[in-house]
Amino acid sequence: MDITLVPGNSLITATPEDGRHLAIKMARLVVKATQPDDDTRAKLRAIYANDASDLIQVGHVVALEFATIAAANNYWRD
Amino acid sequence: MDITLVPGNSLITATPEDGRHLAIKMARLVVKATQPDDDTRAKLRAIYANDASDLIQVGHVVALEFATIAAANNYWRD
Amino acid sequence: MDITLVPGNSLITATPEDGRHLAIKMARLVVKATQPDDDTRAKLRAIYANDASDLIQVGHVVALEFATIAAANNYWRD
Amino acid sequence: MDITLVPGNSLITATPEDGRHLAIKMARLVVKATQPDDDTRAKLRAIYANDASDLIQVGHVVALEFATIAAANNYWRD
Amino acid sequence: MDITLVPGNSLITATPEDGRHLAIKMARLVVKATQPDDDTRAKLRAIYANDASDLIQVGHVVALEFATIAAANNYWRD
Amino acid sequence: MDITLVPGNSLITATPEDGRHLAIKMARLVVKATQPDDDTRAKLRAIYANDASDLIQVGHVVALEFATIAAANNYWRD
Repeated sequence: MDITLVPGNSLITATPEDGRHLAIKMARLVVKATQPDDDTRAKLRAIYANDASDLIQVGHVVALEFATIAAANNYWRD
Repeated sequence: MDITLVPGNSLITATPEDGRHLAIKMARLVVKATQPDDDTRAKLRAIYANDASDLIQVGHVVALEFATIAAANNYWRD
Repeated sequence: MDITLVPGNSLITATPEDGRHLAIKMARLVVKATQPDDDTRAKLRAIYANDASDLIQVGHVVALEFATIAAANNYWRD
Repeated sequence: MDITLVPGNSLITATPEDGRHLAIKMARLVVKATQPDDDTRAKLRAIYANDASDLIQVGHVVALEFATIAAANNYWRD
Repeated sequence: MDITLVPGNSLITATPEDGRHLAIKMARLVVKATQPDDDTRAKLRAIYANDASDLIQVGHVVALEFATIAAANNYWRD
Repeated sequence: MDITLVPGNSLITATPEDGRHLAIKMARLVVKATQPDDDTRAKLRAIYANDASDLIQVGHVVALEFATIAAANNYWRD
């Protein structure tokens, strides 16, 4: 697999906002690793971006990735 | 992406009630980042707000976002 | 949003039983915040209370809310 | 709600096996609280006990309840 | 219920590989406790083992059981 | 079961990127343990790699496996 799965190879980010962006990127990169064809992903994106249930599940995955990133950063409390 | 994903760029809130509101906002902002078109989101909202399974899943995502926020705030025990 | 999302604005409860009740209430209040119309919620409740898959998912959300509440209370070990 | 949601009002159990039984009971009691009619639950049980997807989701909920109970008991390491 | 739910009545295993096997067994035993009929389970297994969505969900449950077992074993770091 | 479920029999990896690869492998190996037939898995892979909802759920499972691996590695903070 020659796709980078963790941009910057680190879970540490400066802020929660940056952590949230990383969570979205990491979620997308797993999809890319599973379906590497750009055209197919574009077609599927048009489907899930217009489907209420799918969008909720996208939110679910991002929330889970973010939970890990937030813990890694001690919730940016320090 | 020019959408703010974490309002206030912090997971720290004064109370559990505030944390719950943040959880709902954060969940919605991921949907907005994935489907930026306002009209499409309004249409989809009319769907999931009237679908039992979808509403339960909305609750699931909010519960997960809130778990992270609650941990960040040491469960507002201090 | 003028709905109270965390009754008592605290995750601390006297017992696990009380924590479980809070988990159920918090799960329901997110649904109420997303679908504020009482009649619509009553109609949807008749659907999910009679659907096996939906009921299992209701249990899932309550389990997740409870996990957070239990952690907040140090699992009522003290 | 006059249904007991946490039998014994405690998450502490003597063994992992006991904890697993508690997890199953707690998962079922939320379903009972949501659908109190015994006949309806019996009918729904006949459905989900014969549906592969539903059974997997039952396993999911029990796993989540158990995670909380296991943490409460320090994983029975002591 | 006369089915053993946690083989060995312990979450402690020698290695991650052993922990993973335990996770799979524990996930299956909940299904067995919910649907005790061997023939029915065999029929359902033929369904979910040939359904992409079901297989992914099986993986989900095992991942969750494993998370608990891994925490119980301090991630086999010691 | 003669399938290796945890490559290297360890959750410890040098980097987040390596941890992410391990998460994907572990998720796939559970599917392999549940459906050992190579041809069937290839057929199912063609299905889920072209289905938006399935791909999102694949991402969900990987996120959960990764959460465990990240915790095992102290989030690669050290």
